[in-house]
Amino acid sequence: MEYNPNWIAVDWGTSNLRAWVMDAQNRPQHALESARGMGTLEPDQFEAALMALIDPYLPIGLVTEVLCCGMVGARQGWAEAAYVAVPAAPPTAKTALRVPTSDPRISVSIIPGMMQKSPADVMRGEETQILGVLHDDPEFDGVICLPGTHTKWAHISAGEVVSFRTFMTGETFALLSTRSVLRHSMAETDWDIRAFEDGLSTGLTDPKRVAANLFSLRATGLVDEASNLNAYSTLSGLLIGLELGGAKPYWLGQQVLIVGSGHQSEIYRHALVKQGADAKILSGDHITRLGLSQARA
Amino acid sequence: MEYNPNWIAVDWGTSNLRAWVMDAQNRPQHALESARGMGTLEPDQFEAALMALIDPYLPIGLVTEVLCCGMVGARQGWAEAAYVAVPAAPPTAKTALRVPTSDPRISVSIIPGMMQKSPADVMRGEETQILGVLHDDPEFDGVICLPGTHTKWAHISAGEVVSFRTFMTGETFALLSTRSVLRHSMAETDWDIRAFEDGLSTGLTDPKRVAANLFSLRATGLVDEASNLNAYSTLSGLLIGLELGGAKPYWLGQQVLIVGSGHQSEIYRHALVKQGADAKILSGDHITRLGLSQARA
Repeated sequence: MEYNPNWIAVDWGTSNLRAWVMDAQNRPQHALESARGMGTLEPDQFEAALMALIDPYLPIGLVTEVLCCGMVGARQGWAEAAYVAVPAAPPTAKTALRVPTSDPRISVSIIPGMMQKSPADVMRGEETQILGVLHDDPEFDGVICLPGTHTKWAHISAGEVVSFRTFMTGETFALLSTRSVLRHSMAETDWDIRAFEDGLSTGLTDPKRVAANLFSLRATGLVDEASNLNAYSTLSGLLIGLELGGAKPYWLGQQVLIVGSGHQSEIYRHALVKQGADAKILSGDHITRLGLSQARA
Repeated sequence: MEYNPNWIAVDWGTSNLRAWVMDAQNRPQHALESARGMGTLEPDQFEAALMALIDPYLPIGLVTEVLCCGMVGARQGWAEAAYVAVPAAPPTAKTALRVPTSDPRISVSIIPGMMQKSPADVMRGEETQILGVLHDDPEFDGVICLPGTHTKWAHISAGEVVSFRTFMTGETFALLSTRSVLRHSMAETDWDIRAFEDGLSTGLTDPKRVAANLFSLRATGLVDEASNLNAYSTLSGLLIGLELGGAKPYWLGQQVLIVGSGHQSEIYRHALVKQGADAKILSGDHITRLGLSQARA
C-alpha cells in the first residue's frame, strides 16, 4: 500500500470528539464532531466512535494517518500514553503512542500529555495547543492561559514548558450555578461587566471573603426583591478572581496569550487587562490544528 | 373541644421532615422522621406529608398543636412566614404563622426565619436552635456556629441575634467530592486528621491558594501512584479553612458554641480549638426540641 499524504487531526476530549480531514498542506478540508467524548466510551468502543466520524473520508487502498491529542490518551481512554515530565518541549508524533486498530485503513497514534511533579499537575491536549503557539512563534517567551472546564496556565521559555498549573474554576462555576442553591438566583440576564468586576476584585484582593460572599448571592434577592444584583456575573468574577490570585506568579508582569474562544476567553482577557497584564486571544481550534500539524513536522 | 396539653414539635427542612410527640413537660415521647422535606413537596402536599407521620399519635376529639420551624416557612414551602430582621430576639410562637388545615384535629403554625439586610443573609430553622441555646443559658453572650449544608455563624448578645453569616461549605464540599473530577480521588479511606489540618492551614492563612490546590488533589495520584495523600480530608480542610478565614470576626477571641452532631461538628470544633478558640458542642436535635418548647413558653 502507498502512504497517503492526507491525514486526520483529532482532538479527543472528555466530552467531545473533534476531527479535521487535512490536506497535504495541513489545511482542514472537513471539520467533523461528535459527542462521543472519552468520558462516554469504554476502551473497545473508541475505534468504532472514530470510524463513525471519519469513514466516509478515507481513501480506498491507502493507509491514512490519524493523529490524536487529549483525554483519549488517559488511563480511562483508548490507550494510555505516558506523560512527559516538565520542564520539556511539548511532545510530538515522534513519541506518540501507536494504537492497534482492526481496520487496516487507519494508522492511529496518540500524543502524550505532560505532567509536573511538584506541585502535582497534569495536562492532556493543552500540550498540543502549546506546540501550536510555538509553531506560530518559535521564540515565544511568556505565559499561555488556556481557559476551559479546567483552565491551565503554562510558563513557556526556550521552546519548553517550564511549569504549569490547573484551576478547576470552570467546573466549580458550573456546579455552583446549576447544582447548588445558587441556581435559584441565576436568572437569564445579560452579562453585567460591573458585577463581574466587583466579584473579581473581591476574589483577587480579599480571597477569604469568597466563601462568605457566595450565599449572599442567593440571600440578596430574598432580602431585597428590588435588588438588581447580577448573581451570575458576580459569581463568575469571584471565582476567576480567586483563580487570578492563585495564578499571580504566572501573569504578573508577563505577556499572556489566551488560547480559546468565545465569552470565557473574553472575560479572562478583560480580567487580566484590568490588572495591567498584556493579554491577547488566539483561536483555540486554529491553534489545536496548528499543534497537531506541527507534531508531525 | 378541649385543648390537649400534649403537642407536636416539627423541624421541617429542605430534605427531611422530623417530628417529636411531646408531653406536657416538653419531653419527647416519640421521634418520627420522613424524607418528605420541603424540597420534595408542592404547597398542597404538606398537610398530607405531616399527617402520614403524626396521625397515629393524635388524640380523638381534641385539637393538637403542631409547631414547626425550618424551610417549611419559605416561599416555596407550605406557607411563607415572613423573616424577622436582626438585631432581634429569635421569634417565638407568638409571631408564628397560623396555617389553615383541612383536618380539624391539628392546629399548625410556623415560626418565622430571620434575615439580615447587609451583608444580605437569611436563616430558617437555626433561629429556633438559637432560642434553644438561650433557653439553656439566657445570659449566653458569644457566638453560635451551626454546621450543616449551609453553616451559620451567629453573634448573640443580650438575648438577641446581633448578626449572622452563612457559608456554603457543606454544599460545596458535597458537589466537589461527588460531582467534580475530584470524585475519582475520593477513595473510601479513614479520616486523616493531619491531611485535614494541612488543608485547613492553607485555606485559613493563604486562601488564594485554595483554587490552585484543588486540582492537585486529583493530579497527585496520577503523578505519583505511591502517594498516600488523603484527598477527602485535605479538601475538607481547604474549604473549612477558607470558611474560618471569612468567619474570623465571629470566632476570634470568642466563646463558640457548636450546635450539631457527628463528624461535621467534631471537625469544626477541632479546627476552632486549633486556632485557640474556646469551642464546645451541643447536640443539635436536643437544642431544636428545646427551642421549639421555648418558643411556646
